[in-house]
Amino acid sequence: MYFEDYSKFISAYEDFENSKYVIFGIPFDATTSYKPGARFGPDEVRGASWGLETFSPILKKDLIDLKICDKYNISIEGNQETIINRAYLAAKNIMENGKVPVMIGGEHSVTYPMIKAVKDVYSDFIIIHFDAHCDLRNSYNGNEQSHASVIRRSYDFTKDIFQFGIRSGDREEWEFGWENTNISMNMPTKTDIEKIKELNKPIYITIDIDVLDPAFVPGTGTPEPCGFSPKELIESLYLLKELKDRIVGFDVVEVSPHYDLGKITSVTAAKIIRELMLIIDRQ
Amino acid sequence: MYFEDYSKFISAYEDFENSKYVIFGIPFDATTSYKPGARFGPDEVRGASWGLETFSPILKKDLIDLKICDKYNISIEGNQETIINRAYLAAKNIMENGKVPVMIGGEHSVTYPMIKAVKDVYSDFIIIHFDAHCDLRNSYNGNEQSHASVIRRSYDFTKDIFQFGIRSGDREEWEFGWENTNISMNMPTKTDIEKIKELNKPIYITIDIDVLDPAFVPGTGTPEPCGFSPKELIESLYLLKELKDRIVGFDVVEVSPHYDLGKITSVTAAKIIRELMLIIDRQ
Amino acid sequence: MYFEDYSKFISAYEDFENSKYVIFGIPFDATTSYKPGARFGPDEVRGASWGLETFSPILKKDLIDLKICDKYNISIEGNQETIINRAYLAAKNIMENGKVPVMIGGEHSVTYPMIKAVKDVYSDFIIIHFDAHCDLRNSYNGNEQSHASVIRRSYDFTKDIFQFGIRSGDREEWEFGWENTNISMNMPTKTDIEKIKELNKPIYITIDIDVLDPAFVPGTGTPEPCGFSPKELIESLYLLKELKDRIVGFDVVEVSPHYDLGKITSVTAAKIIRELMLIIDRQ
Amino acid sequence: MYFEDYSKFISAYEDFENSKYVIFGIPFDATTSYKPGARFGPDEVRGASWGLETFSPILKKDLIDLKICDKYNISIEGNQETIINRAYLAAKNIMENGKVPVMIGGEHSVTYPMIKAVKDVYSDFIIIHFDAHCDLRNSYNGNEQSHASVIRRSYDFTKDIFQFGIRSGDREEWEFGWENTNISMNMPTKTDIEKIKELNKPIYITIDIDVLDPAFVPGTGTPEPCGFSPKELIESLYLLKELKDRIVGFDVVEVSPHYDLGKITSVTAAKIIRELMLIIDRQ
Amino acid sequence: MYFEDYSKFISAYEDFENSKYVIFGIPFDATTSYKPGARFGPDEVRGASWGLETFSPILKKDLIDLKICDKYNISIEGNQETIINRAYLAAKNIMENGKVPVMIGGEHSVTYPMIKAVKDVYSDFIIIHFDAHCDLRNSYNGNEQSHASVIRRSYDFTKDIFQFGIRSGDREEWEFGWENTNISMNMPTKTDIEKIKELNKPIYITIDIDVLDPAFVPGTGTPEPCGFSPKELIESLYLLKELKDRIVGFDVVEVSPHYDLGKITSVTAAKIIRELMLIIDRQ
Amino acid sequence: MYFEDYSKFISAYEDFENSKYVIFGIPFDATTSYKPGARFGPDEVRGASWGLETFSPILKKDLIDLKICDKYNISIEGNQETIINRAYLAAKNIMENGKVPVMIGGEHSVTYPMIKAVKDVYSDFIIIHFDAHCDLRNSYNGNEQSHASVIRRSYDFTKDIFQFGIRSGDREEWEFGWENTNISMNMPTKTDIEKIKELNKPIYITIDIDVLDPAFVPGTGTPEPCGFSPKELIESLYLLKELKDRIVGFDVVEVSPHYDLGKITSVTAAKIIRELMLIIDRQ
Repeated sequence: MYFEDYSKFISAYEDFENSKYVIFGIPFDATTSYKPGARFGPDEVRGASWGLETFSPILKKDLIDLKICDKYNISIEGNQETIINRAYLAAKNIMENGKVPVMIGGEHSVTYPMIKAVKDVYSDFIIIHFDAHCDLRNSYNGNEQSHASVIRRSYDFTKDIFQFGIRSGDREEWEFGWENTNISMNMPTKTDIEKIKELNKPIYITIDIDVLDPAFVPGTGTPEPCGFSPKELIESLYLLKELKDRIVGFDVVEVSPHYDLGKITSVTAAKIIRELMLIIDRQ
Repeated sequence: MYFEDYSKFISAYEDFENSKYVIFGIPFDATTSYKPGARFGPDEVRGASWGLETFSPILKKDLIDLKICDKYNISIEGNQETIINRAYLAAKNIMENGKVPVMIGGEHSVTYPMIKAVKDVYSDFIIIHFDAHCDLRNSYNGNEQSHASVIRRSYDFTKDIFQFGIRSGDREEWEFGWENTNISMNMPTKTDIEKIKELNKPIYITIDIDVLDPAFVPGTGTPEPCGFSPKELIESLYLLKELKDRIVGFDVVEVSPHYDLGKITSVTAAKIIRELMLIIDRQ
Repeated sequence: MYFEDYSKFISAYEDFENSKYVIFGIPFDATTSYKPGARFGPDEVRGASWGLETFSPILKKDLIDLKICDKYNISIEGNQETIINRAYLAAKNIMENGKVPVMIGGEHSVTYPMIKAVKDVYSDFIIIHFDAHCDLRNSYNGNEQSHASVIRRSYDFTKDIFQFGIRSGDREEWEFGWENTNISMNMPTKTDIEKIKELNKPIYITIDIDVLDPAFVPGTGTPEPCGFSPKELIESLYLLKELKDRIVGFDVVEVSPHYDLGKITSVTAAKIIRELMLIIDRQ
Repeated sequence: MYFEDYSKFISAYEDFENSKYVIFGIPFDATTSYKPGARFGPDEVRGASWGLETFSPILKKDLIDLKICDKYNISIEGNQETIINRAYLAAKNIMENGKVPVMIGGEHSVTYPMIKAVKDVYSDFIIIHFDAHCDLRNSYNGNEQSHASVIRRSYDFTKDIFQFGIRSGDREEWEFGWENTNISMNMPTKTDIEKIKELNKPIYITIDIDVLDPAFVPGTGTPEPCGFSPKELIESLYLLKELKDRIVGFDVVEVSPHYDLGKITSVTAAKIIRELMLIIDRQ
Repeated sequence: MYFEDYSKFISAYEDFENSKYVIFGIPFDATTSYKPGARFGPDEVRGASWGLETFSPILKKDLIDLKICDKYNISIEGNQETIINRAYLAAKNIMENGKVPVMIGGEHSVTYPMIKAVKDVYSDFIIIHFDAHCDLRNSYNGNEQSHASVIRRSYDFTKDIFQFGIRSGDREEWEFGWENTNISMNMPTKTDIEKIKELNKPIYITIDIDVLDPAFVPGTGTPEPCGFSPKELIESLYLLKELKDRIVGFDVVEVSPHYDLGKITSVTAAKIIRELMLIIDRQ
Repeated sequence: MYFEDYSKFISAYEDFENSKYVIFGIPFDATTSYKPGARFGPDEVRGASWGLETFSPILKKDLIDLKICDKYNISIEGNQETIINRAYLAAKNIMENGKVPVMIGGEHSVTYPMIKAVKDVYSDFIIIHFDAHCDLRNSYNGNEQSHASVIRRSYDFTKDIFQFGIRSGDREEWEFGWENTNISMNMPTKTDIEKIKELNKPIYITIDIDVLDPAFVPGTGTPEPCGFSPKELIESLYLLKELKDRIVGFDVVEVSPHYDLGKITSVTAAKIIRELMLIIDRQ
C-alpha cells in the first residue's frame, strides 16, 4: 500500500487471461550492421510511456479502458535461433488465445518470428510495413535472418506486403520491391488503404521507428535523413481505423536508447503504441 | 575598457528606470513531475541569446533600438510560497511602472504569479497560452500550485483563456477545456485572432516551450511528440502584430538545459523572446 | 515461460514475507538546490544492477543465497509531507517485521523518514553517514526538511552520529559538526570502528553517493571534487563486517541519472548495495 | 585480402587520374565566433557516409558507377593564410584537370579559396549559396577572412550570387544583400533556377549545413532556429538537374561533430554530397 | 602535396613488408551481453592516437623510430565463424612473417583467433590477461565463442594463463580460475613477472580496457567499478620490459565509443598501445 | 530587492577599487590544435562556482572574508594580437594597482599576456607551471604564439620556470625542458618548494587544468591519460602556503565545457581558484 510499480507499460497491469493486448519486448540486436543498442529499446519505451497521458484527445479514448497485459521481455538465453524460436512460440500462443500481440524491439530481425506466428495462426494475411529501409536483401553479411532481410524473408509467407516511407536500399532491393511488393516512398494514401481493404485479410503492422526523420528519433541504429514526422505517421495510422477489426498484431522496432536525447525516441514509440492500441480497440 | 559583460540577455543593458521591457527569470522547478531542470532555463536562454543577431529580417527591426533591462533572476530563497509571492510583487512592480515584463521560466507554475499580478494591475484581461499540455488539472500530486494546474488556477482570474497547440491531458482536463476555455490543438488562425481582438482587453501571453515538437526543443521536462516547429509558432506570433498595443507581458517557460543538445532549445526560446519584443515594440 | 522480468534489483525476486532484505526506492528530489534528477535514481540503480554478477569474489558470497524482496518505489502521490510520512510508515513496517530496509534515493532528504522509523523501532541507535557534504544546516532556503539539513534533523533522534568523507559545508555546519558529531574528512579507520563498536547499539548507514569523487559518480546533483574512489569506500565498508549483526538498515542516495555517462554512477551504487547486503548477510 | 579500408568517403576509391570527382576536406575553424569544432567535420562526414547506401532511389543512380577520388584533408600546417593558399592551389589543380572538387569543411571561411580558384579557372561564374546566415559582413572581429565575411569577399570575384534559406544577419548585411545579391529567405523556386539558367555561366555551389533547421543538424557551430528540413533542401537541389553541366564544384561546410547526436548531422551532409554528385554525374 | 592522411594510427605509415608491427582492428561485437558498440573501437582508437605525441618521456623512445604498418580492419563480411577465421588467418600470416600483430577490438571474443594463431605459430606459449572479468565461462547465452568465454576457450591452447586486475565473475568462473589459472585481483607484482620469466616461453598479451576503472574508461561495454587507473596499468606494463623479446603480439579490446566522453577511453587505449610497442621495440 | 545576480564568480561582488583580487576571463581558443572550446571556460567556471561553498574546511577560511572583484571577460573584438594586447594591458593595470589577477582561460596561449605583464610590473620573477604538456615548442603549426609554445615564449622573460605534472611533449621539448627548466613529471615536493623559496622572487602560477587526469576533468581540449587527481593537485598547492606573500597572480586555463559531463571540470577549476585565493589571502 506504500509502494507503486512503474515497471510495465503505462496502464498495462491486466493479467494475461483477462487481457486483449499483450505487450512484450524482444531485446535482441546482434545482427545490427551499423549502431547496435536496440536491445535496450523495450525497457526504455516502457519507462517513457509514463511521460504520456493514457487519454488520446484525438481518438477521445483512454488506455485505462483497455485490457492490457505486459509480459516484460522474451528471455534472451541462447543463440539467435533459440531466441527467435521462443519469440515465435510466444507470439503464436498470444494469437491462439485471441489476443493482440504488441511487440517492442529490438532490431528489425525480431519481426520475423512475429510474421511466422501470424502465418501459422491466420494463414493468409497482409503486412503493412513502415520503414526508412527496404529490408529486402536476400542476405546481409552472409546472414539470411538479419535485420536487413526481414521483409524479404516475410515474402516467403505472404505476397501481400505494403511498404511505406521507404527511402533507402541498394539497387537490387528496390528492383525487388518495385516488382514484388507495394513499395512507396510516402505515407499511405486513401487509395492505398482502399486497396488493402479490398484484400479483406488479417493485417500485421510492423513499424521501424526509423521511418521517422532522425531529428524526431535520434535514438535509432541506422539514421536515414529525409524521413517523416511523428505527426505524419500517426495521422496515417488514423487512416487504418476502418481496418481495425482485421489488425491481428503489430510491432515497433529499432528504438535504441544510445543517443536518444531526452528520451524523445522512446516517448514517440510509446505514443505510437498508445494510439495504435486505441485505434484497434477490441474490448 | 578592457572587459565586456555578456551576462545579460543580448542588448538588454538599459537600466530599470529608462526601460520599456524588463526581462527576469524565475529559476524554479520543484513541482515538475517528470524531468526537472527548468530552474537553469533563464541563464541558459540569456547565454544562448548571444548566438543570435539583434536584427530581425522579417520584422526589419533591431533589438538595439528598444530599451530593455535585464534584472537577472528572482531570488529563490525560501519555500515555494515565498518565491511565488516575490515573483508576484516583482511583476506587479514592473507593470505598475508601465513596463512590459518578459519572464523566463522555470517550470510552468511560475506563470501563476505573473497572472496574479496582471489581475491586480489590469483587472480584466485575456490569456493566450501556447503549450503541449492542457495544464488544467485541479490539483496534481496533491499540489494545487503545480505546473500541471497553472491554467486551471488562472481560470480563477479570467475566463478569457485561449489555448493553442495543446495535444496532451487527461480526460477531465480536456472536458474542462472543451467547456470552459478556447482550447485548440492547432496554432491560432486569423479567426482566433479576430475573436481575441473583439474582446478588446489587455493580453498576457504564456508560452510553454514544449508546444514545439521535442525534435526542435529536446531540452524540456515533458516532451510530447507531434508538436509544432519554431517556424510555425513564430509565424503565428506575427499574427499578433495587430494586437500589439494590448500585450502587457509575456513569458517563455519550461526550457530545461538537461539534454538540450547544442543549446538548440535555449536559442529557440531566445529567438521567440526577440521576435515577441520586436512585435510589441512600444518605444 | 517465454518471458523474463528484469524490472527488479538483480536477485531480488523473493516475496515480502520470506525476505530478510526489503529493497525500495524513494524517487523524490524536490528540495534539491543545484541539479535535480535523483528521483530517477532507484529505477536506474535497479537497471544497472543487471550489469553486475551476483557473486562477490572478495566476500566469496552470492546474492542468490540471500532472501531479498524488491517492492519498487514509494508512491509519490501528494506533497513532500505526505510522501515522507508514507516512506516512514513503510520503513517502520519493514523493520517491525524483522527485516532490513535497503532504500535507494532520491535526494538525501529521504533519509529523514528512515531515521525516524529507526528511532521508533530501535529507540537508541547510531548513524554512520558517508557524504561529501555536512548536511548539517538548520534550514536551507527556508526548508527545515531539505536535503542539506537531513543530518541536523537526525541529530534530534540520536547524538551518536559518525560522518565520513565530508569535505564541504558552510562555516556554521562545520562548527556544529566539530562540536557535536564525529565528523571526519576521511574514510573510517579501525579506531573509528572500535569506537562505534563500543557503543554497542543498532546502526543505520546512510551513503550519499557524492562521497565518491565526481569522476567516479558523475551522475549526482552536487558534485564536489576531491572525493574518494569506490574502492576506498567499499574497502572501508568491509571494516564494518564485525558490526554486521547490529546494522538494521541502510540507504544509498543522490544517484541522479542526468549526466551519468555509461551508467557508471548507478552501477557503482548497485555494487555498494550488493556488497553491503552480503556484508550484513543475516540469513 | 583479409582487411578492408573504410577511411574514405563511401565508394570514393578511385585514384586521382581516373576520377571525375575529387573529394577533400579543409579541417579549419579558427575564426569561428560561437561554437568551434567544424575542423572535425570532414572525417565525421566520411565515417557517416558508410551508414548510407550508394544507390539513390529517387535519382535511380548509384555512386559505384561514378569515378570518385578522396584525397583526405588539406594539410593544416601553418597559419590561416598558408592553409587557405594551400587549399586554393589544390582546388585550382583539381579544376584545371577537368575534375569537380567536392570540398567538406571546416567553417565557412574555407569556401574562400574555392571561389578564388573558380575565378582563376573559369573567370566568369555564378555562386549558389545555401545558408542560415548572410555571411556578408565586411569584416568580423577585425578579420576580413572570417566565416562571417566569406560571401562578401566572394563578391569581389563575381556579382552573380544567389543566396537561399538566409534568415540571420545584422542590418548592414541584409541591406547589402537586398541591394547587391539575389538574397532569399526561401529555398530556390523554378523562377530562380530559370534566372540562373539564363546567365549561362559556370556554377559553384556552397552549402552551409546550418541552412537546415538545428533539429535536423544539431552538430553545427551557430544554430539558427526556423530553418529548412533536409527533404526541402534536397528537393530543391533536384531542381538543379537541368544546370548540371555547368556545375564546376561544390562544398558542404560547418558540420561540427560536437553535439552531433547519433551523427545525424554528418549523415545528412553525406547524403547531400551523394545526391549532388549523382545529380551532376558527368561520367 | 597539398593533402594529408590521418586515417591510420599515428606514425603507422610503413608498408607491410618493411614493418615490424602490424596494427589491425577486428570491429566485431555481436556476442556482447550488455552494451554493444565495441565494433567502433578500432577506428576511434586510430583517431584518438593523433591527440598523443609519438614520444614517450618515460621510455625516452619515439614511435617514429619504429616500423609500423596499419592494415585498417578485418573485413566483417559473413557470420561470426567466417570473420573469426579471417582474423585468425590474418594474425597467423603476420606472425609467420616475423612481425608483431597489434590488434584493436572489438569485443573480447576477437582475442580467440589471435590465440589460435599464436598456438599455430609458436605452439607453447603464455597468455597475460588484463581484465575486470574472468571471461572463464564455459558458455554464455548458449554461445561457446562469446566474449565471456574467451579465456576459457584459450585454456584449450595453453595452461599458462596469468590473469590480472580481475574483479568480477560468477562463482564457477572464480573456482575455475583459482584452480587452473594464475588469477589475481591486482596488477602484476615483481614476483609474478619472475614466475612468467622462468617459464621461458613466447608471450601473448590481451588487455580488456575495462580492467581500468570506468571513471577512466567510460566507453566500455560492461563497466565494473573498483578498477585500476591508467597510471597503475602502464606502470605494470613497464615491468614487462625484461620480457620484451618474448612478446609475440598483443591486443587491446572492448573500447566502445558509445558514452566515451571526450574520447578519453580511446586516447587511453592508444597510449597503452604506444607504450607497449615502445616497450617491445624490436627494430 | 526581488532579484539576485549569480553572473559573477561566487562571492566576487566587490568593486575594482576596494578589491584585492580581480577575476577575469580570456575567452580565446583560436590556436587550439585538437579540440577547441576553451573560449567558453570562464563563464562555465563562474556558473559552477555557485555549486561550491565559500568556506574551505581545510584552510578554515571563507571567501566572503576576501575582497574579490569579477570583471567578466576580456573583450575578444579584433584578431589574436589585439586580444592578447588588451589582456596584457588589463593584467598590468591590475597588478600596478597592487591587486592579484586571477585569470580564467581560454586556451593556454592566453597566459602569455599575463607573463608579459608580470615582467613589466615585477621584472624578475618565477613561473610555477602545472600541465600535462611541456608547452615548450618553439612554434606550432607555424604560430609562435600558440598554446603549445606558451612556456617557451615565457622563457624569454624569465629562466626561473618550474614545471610540474608534465607527461607529454615531443623529444625536442623534453630536451629543452631537461636542460633549461625545472621540469618534473610529478607534483611539487617539499624540496622543490624549498628551491623556489630560496630564489626569493615574485611568483606567477599557471595551471593548465589538463594536468589532472581526464577522468577528473573530461572537459579539456587535449586529454592526456595518467594524470593527477584534484586531491593531489590541491594538496600540493597547500605546500605553497609559505610562499603566499610572493604570489602575484595566477591563472587556470583550458577548461572546455564541450564534453564536460555534469560540469565536473568547471567545478574543479572553481575549487582550485577558491583554494588558491584562500591560500594567498592578502587582506
